[in-house]
Amino acid sequence: MTTLTNSILEAVREGAGFPEAFTPLHEPEFAGREEDYVADCIRTGWVSSVGSFVDRFEADLAEFTGCSRAVATVNGTAALHIALKCSGVQAGDEVLLPTLTFVATANATSYAGAIPHFVDSEATTLAVCPEALRSHLEECAEKRDGGCFNRKTGRRIAALVVMHAFGHPAQLDPLLELCREWSIPLVEDAAESLGSYYQGRHTGGFGLVSALSFNGNKILTTGGGGAILTNDPAIADRAKHLTTTARISDGWNFTHDEIGYNYRLPNLNAALGCAQLERITDMLQRKRALAMRYKALFKDIAGVRLLEEPQGTESNYWLCTLVLEQFDHQLHTEVLSALNDAGLMARPVWTLMHRLPMFADAPRADLSCAERLAVQIINIPSSPKLFAAPAGAGGDV
Amino acid sequence: MTTLTNSILEAVREGAGFPEAFTPLHEPEFAGREEDYVADCIRTGWVSSVGSFVDRFEADLAEFTGCSRAVATVNGTAALHIALKCSGVQAGDEVLLPTLTFVATANATSYAGAIPHFVDSEATTLAVCPEALRSHLEECAEKRDGGCFNRKTGRRIAALVVMHAFGHPAQLDPLLELCREWSIPLVEDAAESLGSYYQGRHTGGFGLVSALSFNGNKILTTGGGGAILTNDPAIADRAKHLTTTARISDGWNFTHDEIGYNYRLPNLNAALGCAQLERITDMLQRKRALAMRYKALFKDIAGVRLLEEPQGTESNYWLCTLVLEQFDHQLHTEVLSALNDAGLMARPVWTLMHRLPMFADAPRADLSCAERLAVQIINIPSSPKLFAAPAGAGGDV
Repeated sequence: MTTLTNSILEAVREGAGFPEAFTPLHEPEFAGREEDYVADCIRTGWVSSVGSFVDRFEADLAEFTGCSRAVATVNGTAALHIALKCSGVQAGDEVLLPTLTFVATANATSYAGAIPHFVDSEATTLAVCPEALRSHLEECAEKRDGGCFNRKTGRRIAALVVMHAFGHPAQLDPLLELCREWSIPLVEDAAESLGSYYQGRHTGGFGLVSALSFNGNKILTTGGGGAILTNDPAIADRAKHLTTTARISDGWNFTHDEIGYNYRLPNLNAALGCAQLERITDMLQRKRALAMRYKALFKDIAGVRLLEEPQGTESNYWLCTLVLEQFDHQLHTEVLSALNDAGLMARPVWTLMHRLPMFADAPRADLSCAERLAVQIINIPSSPKLFAAPAGAGGDV
Repeated sequence: MTTLTNSILEAVREGAGFPEAFTPLHEPEFAGREEDYVADCIRTGWVSSVGSFVDRFEADLAEFTGCSRAVATVNGTAALHIALKCSGVQAGDEVLLPTLTFVATANATSYAGAIPHFVDSEATTLAVCPEALRSHLEECAEKRDGGCFNRKTGRRIAALVVMHAFGHPAQLDPLLELCREWSIPLVEDAAESLGSYYQGRHTGGFGLVSALSFNGNKILTTGGGGAILTNDPAIADRAKHLTTTARISDGWNFTHDEIGYNYRLPNLNAALGCAQLERITDMLQRKRALAMRYKALFKDIAGVRLLEEPQGTESNYWLCTLVLEQFDHQLHTEVLSALNDAGLMARPVWTLMHRLPMFADAPRADLSCAERLAVQIINIPSSPKLFAAPAGAGGDV
């Protein structure tokens, strides 16, 4: 084992509080009224796609994020699919998205009948690189008929999806400026960035429409769940319509005016979300404190850094991320092995999208920064409980 | 109000037990260990797409239905989508399905990139009519290259979806025979038929693959949920793969070998399902008793009949269905109004699929029986609790 690997192992072990048992990457924390709220659903019989917790969860999410509307969905992938449809993406269009993302971003593009067009990320935020995207658009795109088109494929470039990786906000201002110049709607994949702010405003409120995820590994979980955020009431109404099988009621007659989806979040899951959201500030504070502890531990270790929230942003530090200085596949593997072997769960970034067989032929920009990041990034245990016992948990503290 | 309408109103009122409050069409019943199991998920932290209740729910469903495998999904629409993909349906194919069905059947066909081809139902089961389908195939289809093709459109006819309406089993034997003759895979939309048997065997086990639904209005609910049933282990494995984002793991590296879906049922919802399934026999017995009570009340009312389980089948009587003798739009509306105005929730059948704008151009057979049934069918309150208080509920009985 190299000295660097050993130093990383010891720092992670200390940062995680010298755990004696296996330490997952990110565990949910239920220390509030989760049981009460879920039991309430069962006692009242309101467990399915209509119910007071769904309404409340949507209102609470809108208030927390500062967006005018939230539409709860069955998961984050469904939210992204509908966000893309609501942004105007049509079958045969191309959608710009980072190759460095979870597969849902690219899959949702496919569900909308569109073709992913992969772009590069940058090392400060791990998100779409505005400069690289500008060069790429200048090289391959042209504006006509009020839209942006790929000169090589002839297809319309219908949207840019910006994903806030591991909770760190992307460079939204330059990206929004670029999208305005090229007449491309910006959609935020905010699946990982609940509780993350850019220039003081919550992520998800900058694009035309955005998607949240409440999967079990996220800061806030509903078991499975997601939400669409927007400040445009017409988009919110359309999102609600599309996620409710595009149903129109006229007395006891129901009809459907387009192909819709069974994408609404059940009340049972929304109940969990309401309880989780009551405690999110506490969880965010402890996650930040954990990140600061890791930061201090890694400050003097040469060859690796803890990814810090970009300037002008406040990150939720969903996952604490180490970035190795060198592009060294062997070192990357050695560090991952050492951590996992020690029971400290560690993971590389996702397999880059352009390397997946189903997207092998998709158009793409130069992706060299993402390629380098793929052998530099290591995510380490990041559960809020690693910092301190939750305030309301247990009676033996 | 006509005499017939008045007789129907009084019979439904008596059948429902002279309720004093508004009476829904179908309410869920939580009288078992629902709260315990859901609380267990929260206490252990296992609420998301992996967990012991998901495994148990799949095993329990397989045992209850007698199918070799069940794959739990986020809802019945997702189950149908994957069932169609697993049956070999490809983009550009046609799928035969009844016009008399819930919109999910046709939507799922569209999600698979296929075109619905609507066929007629018959009045005994309300399901696909084997005789009418035989005539229609003889008129429009031909076998070639080992498959069945629509001579008019040139497209492959890739599957027949048989939906067991309101729980009554379709005429599976003649439909299976027809599918064998024409080399068309049969897929069962068993969303409404959990607890329904054809010739002594549970529905859902006859086709190549089938779909269940556990929406809030179903006999068994998981809030939102569904399952894929099959006796083919390769199909079950593929269904699991497709519903789990087509993920392949190699140590800590994850990749995806095709476009997959985020369709797994969360453990929180599966927990509810496990508790519900423990009590399904009791719920089915009381639903049957309720249907028998309605049957006796309607026996001597001329001009209307309670739809009975077809010969050789055992129906779950998910919804009790009245069928008016006449094809009289005005009478149909009058009866629906009278029941709903009296607080006895009543609903017509779904808007027929071929009348929906997005399917207006879809190929179709003669649909005259379904057209008639649309002004004959009235569903009436069918909750199990209408028969008697659940055995384990309350302490003050």
